[in-house]
Amino acid sequence: MTQHTIAVLPGDGIGREVMPEALKVLDRVGQIFDIGFRFSHLDWSCETWLATGSMMPPDGMDRLSQHDAILLGAVGYPTVPDHISLWGMLIPIRREFDQYVNLRPVRLLPGIPCPLAGRAPGDIDFWIVRENTEGEYSQIGGRFAEGSEAEGVAQTAIFTRRGTDRIMRYAFDLATRLGRPHVSSATKSNGLFHSMPYWDERFEKMAAEYPDIRTDSHHIDILAARFVMHPDRFDVVVGSNLFGDILSDLGPGVTGTIAVAPSANINPEKRFPSMFEPVHGSAPDIAGRAIANPIGQVWAASMMLDHLGEGEAAALVLRAIEHMTADPSALVRTADIGGHASTSACGDAIVAAL
Amino acid sequence: MTQHTIAVLPGDGIGREVMPEALKVLDRVGQIFDIGFRFSHLDWSCETWLATGSMMPPDGMDRLSQHDAILLGAVGYPTVPDHISLWGMLIPIRREFDQYVNLRPVRLLPGIPCPLAGRAPGDIDFWIVRENTEGEYSQIGGRFAEGSEAEGVAQTAIFTRRGTDRIMRYAFDLATRLGRPHVSSATKSNGLFHSMPYWDERFEKMAAEYPDIRTDSHHIDILAARFVMHPDRFDVVVGSNLFGDILSDLGPGVTGTIAVAPSANINPEKRFPSMFEPVHGSAPDIAGRAIANPIGQVWAASMMLDHLGEGEAAALVLRAIEHMTADPSALVRTADIGGHASTSACGDAIVAAL
Ligand SMILES: CC(C)[C@H](C(=O)O)[C@@H](O)C(=O)O
Ligand SMILES: CC(C)[C@H](C(=O)O)[C@@H](O)C(=O)O
Repeated sequence: MTQHTIAVLPGDGIGREVMPEALKVLDRVGQIFDIGFRFSHLDWSCETWLATGSMMPPDGMDRLSQHDAILLGAVGYPTVPDHISLWGMLIPIRREFDQYVNLRPVRLLPGIPCPLAGRAPGDIDFWIVRENTEGEYSQIGGRFAEGSEAEGVAQTAIFTRRGTDRIMRYAFDLATRLGRPHVSSATKSNGLFHSMPYWDERFEKMAAEYPDIRTDSHHIDILAARFVMHPDRFDVVVGSNLFGDILSDLGPGVTGTIAVAPSANINPEKRFPSMFEPVHGSAPDIAGRAIANPIGQVWAASMMLDHLGEGEAAALVLRAIEHMTADPSALVRTADIGGHASTSACGDAIVAAL
Repeated sequence: MTQHTIAVLPGDGIGREVMPEALKVLDRVGQIFDIGFRFSHLDWSCETWLATGSMMPPDGMDRLSQHDAILLGAVGYPTVPDHISLWGMLIPIRREFDQYVNLRPVRLLPGIPCPLAGRAPGDIDFWIVRENTEGEYSQIGGRFAEGSEAEGVAQTAIFTRRGTDRIMRYAFDLATRLGRPHVSSATKSNGLFHSMPYWDERFEKMAAEYPDIRTDSHHIDILAARFVMHPDRFDVVVGSNLFGDILSDLGPGVTGTIAVAPSANINPEKRFPSMFEPVHGSAPDIAGRAIANPIGQVWAASMMLDHLGEGEAAALVLRAIEHMTADPSALVRTADIGGHASTSACGDAIVAAL
């Protein structure tokens, strides 16, 4: 029996409500495939910050590093400024563990009401490869002339060749591996004078190394519009930290709800643990009511299984999710997808489908 | 008879094809309302750049400044890097003429096929107020360690209090003027550490000055998703240069086509001429085939009329556009909206509808 040690970080808000469902699903596939999980439950959150002034204990990163993977719920709390909570845990984990790939599938699941007219499952099915460690997300900068009329802020984005090349290479390799030899790049070289022309230059260089892969490049503004008008035209989309972030909420929005979308923060070299989380946030507006949709968290667990080498188990979980979403019964569907199931009833339905 | 002097800059690609249609429409409304236009035809474009090394003649800005308004087609040419052509004309005009408001309506027109299921004209009808002179669009930065493994680029965004406050004030005043007392802010303060927390701070300050206006603030990622899932929930959306850019292509994408969307680059104090243009670009892929949709350019001319104080004429042009789009005949609709009309046949139909 293979053993995997998993750091479980429910975080805040609905993160605490959807996590138990993912753990139920993992326990069940563990039995089916004879996989053992050792879960370390780490209750680090904005409440920790309110009590102690930091999101994690001082040895937090050390403790996480002793695990094979991290399963995260969501981070964010109304009374804690977002840039404090996120830069205190989520973003440092992505960076210090060099999880430079943020992989996010965009897929229309059966039975999920799609806001687009005339689109069926199969029509929308592609991957977003988001750079996850540099770019626009940066602490470089600050305020000038504070308190005066001339006040302002500067914010500097950094794109390195190493950072840009490795995310693009991952995207091209993924397109090859999937047998979908087509990579689209998100740029904005007409407006962002230094960063995006460089991004384009590296994309062209990388494309030349993969002559069998078709490429196209879209300014982020028109790309966003094309996600709505032609979502069937994409296979693998590579974008910077910010553009990837925007596209990977927009994509799930186009497929009906961001509540079902998962996100894998991957260190491909496996030098550090990778982290898996739903795309949605802590959703303080619905937290505490047991109505949150657990699918994004469960799908994140499926991506984690895949990363741990448990491909069969990962595939079974995804099939169970699709089986559940295809079920029209309001008793298994949460409110956001047209039912009135509780979070745990939906989780139970996925477990049953296994 | 009022006289307006208009600088006409068709620019590149389909800009040259859609501009004549707007001029036809202006000529006709001029007759109807007894408005005189003096057009200066300025053939500045990427071709100028290829021939002379600059997009505009040295006294270009001076000459433009002698006009009441500027009507622009589109800028961009396959063999000229975008950041050269745009920073050589479009962006300097916006900045040197202090056109700090980029106002872009998002409206589902009758007869335009909408990619969203179950949405009708009236359901999607709001305004994007984009900051147009600072923020992420900046030439501050450059390349480091060029040519080495350690190579990279830095790109610095600047947000000033003055720049942030004036665009927000415009948005709040617009919401008041329109009788739609609701302003939504596009932010990303959880990821962009300095710029967006400042943006939020200024937004809260401004909101406090307008107690009768309801406000909400959305991270750009989820906001993009909400444009698709709940486009009916918006009235006035205020965003930075980059976020406003993305949202104002996404919005028109959600309403079916960006070809119909207009953009007003406004200097509200009227110290300098304002500039009106379609949202779409020069579209080299379809240029030269006389199939481009001229509606965005004509609607831009309508916004120009409004800015020039010709509100009745502006409203008539917009009604003529809606009359034309409501006409199901393939003889007046360009290919992108399901017909096979030429650019000029579509323009003629708008003129006829006047
Ligand atoms: C062409 C480009 C520089 C421009 C912009 O990003 O401002 C365009 O996309 C627009 O929205 O007017
Ligand atoms: C919470 C926030 C910092 C985060 C991001 O922007 O990366 C989230 O939106 C995501 O996509 O994981």
